[in-house]
Amino acid sequence: METTAPYVPEPAIRRLPWYLACVSRLRAEGVEYVSSTAISHQLNVDSSQIAKDLSYLNIKGKTRIGYEVKELERGLLDFLGFHREHNAVMMGVGSLGAALMADSGLSRYGLNIVAGFDVNPDVVGTRLGGKPIYDYSDLERRVRELDAEIAVIAVPVESAAEVAQKCVDAGIKALWNFTPFHIKTSPAVAIQNTSIYAHLAVMYNRMPK
Amino acid sequence: METTAPYVPEPAIRRLPWYLACVSRLRAEGVEYVSSTAISHQLNVDSSQIAKDLSYLNIKGKTRIGYEVKELERGLLDFLGFHREHNAVMMGVGSLGAALMADSGLSRYGLNIVAGFDVNPDVVGTRLGGKPIYDYSDLERRVRELDAEIAVIAVPVESAAEVAQKCVDAGIKALWNFTPFHIKTSPAVAIQNTSIYAHLAVMYNRMPK
Repeated sequence: METTAPYVPEPAIRRLPWYLACVSRLRAEGVEYVSSTAISHQLNVDSSQIAKDLSYLNIKGKTRIGYEVKELERGLLDFLGFHREHNAVMMGVGSLGAALMADSGLSRYGLNIVAGFDVNPDVVGTRLGGKPIYDYSDLERRVRELDAEIAVIAVPVESAAEVAQKCVDAGIKALWNFTPFHIKTSPAVAIQNTSIYAHLAVMYNRMPK
Repeated sequence: METTAPYVPEPAIRRLPWYLACVSRLRAEGVEYVSSTAISHQLNVDSSQIAKDLSYLNIKGKTRIGYEVKELERGLLDFLGFHREHNAVMMGVGSLGAALMADSGLSRYGLNIVAGFDVNPDVVGTRLGGKPIYDYSDLERRVRELDAEIAVIAVPVESAAEVAQKCVDAGIKALWNFTPFHIKTSPAVAIQNTSIYAHLAVMYNRMPK
């Protein structure tokens, strides 16, 4: 019987990797059980919030013992999808795109960037970190061939809208947008905006003067 | 007379770079005036939300004419701080840290990474993209010498807490944390968490099955 995955609110999903980092460390240290209070002290997140977030995953602690560390780590990894491989294409291999293609951390979290796309004739046809760089005109065919479901968008902001639409037309199911352009949502694709420059703006604004 | 900058909520600050990207494009196209309705159509953000966000910056549109594009761009740039140079150090020059140091986009947004720090004896003493890589033991002295106010944290998650504390002790005023470790807040430093792997988790979860 197929079961539908529970709907988990986005802020809760974003906190789950914190818990994972915490319990992975505990597991490496040989700790067997952990309470939400102990996690709370380490992460500075309210313990009732932790218990609520984990209950979405159907993970419940035992009274006076807490969570079984290995089980909690496995439950978080399964839910987060970091252990499944997701094929992705990099749209734009300029400074940030090339940097992300070089970040081996992404593959540890399940993102397998299989190719890059660009308009620059100097890079099209070359390889970057062993991955081929193609022209955008090849997108639809390559996405099918490579079985890619995610597109990472790191093109100049002026091209973001057009490139996003090309990806959707090519059958991409999720867009990870690193440009400051706010891509319109559609029910056919998941969109995650990681505008790192917007985070910079918040940091500048909040710095003690 | 000194005036205190208005307190702007974080979600509003995060939207401002979207408006900036939009008006910069309009300015490049020679457009002189833009309404919040027109920005709304381009960005898929409610026009009353846009007007409210901009009113925090004391930017008001004119009835039937809208915002003066150049003035709006200048107001956004001034507020966001992208045109001021902020000296920063990179903590950890592994895969992600080295990638971020190579991203010239950051300097276009006012982040000037002047040096890297690492524990790996193979990289300490070398240069990366022309920037020196030092040992952590030199942190306090170098931060003073280099007049660095921001630390970008891209160390392995197990070291994040310790490295963050070292930065605060060395007089750093803002931490830009790329690790999944949730650094405890303190009134003396601004903390911006950009856990790109958490964004990956949300994207995996929201992908159409």
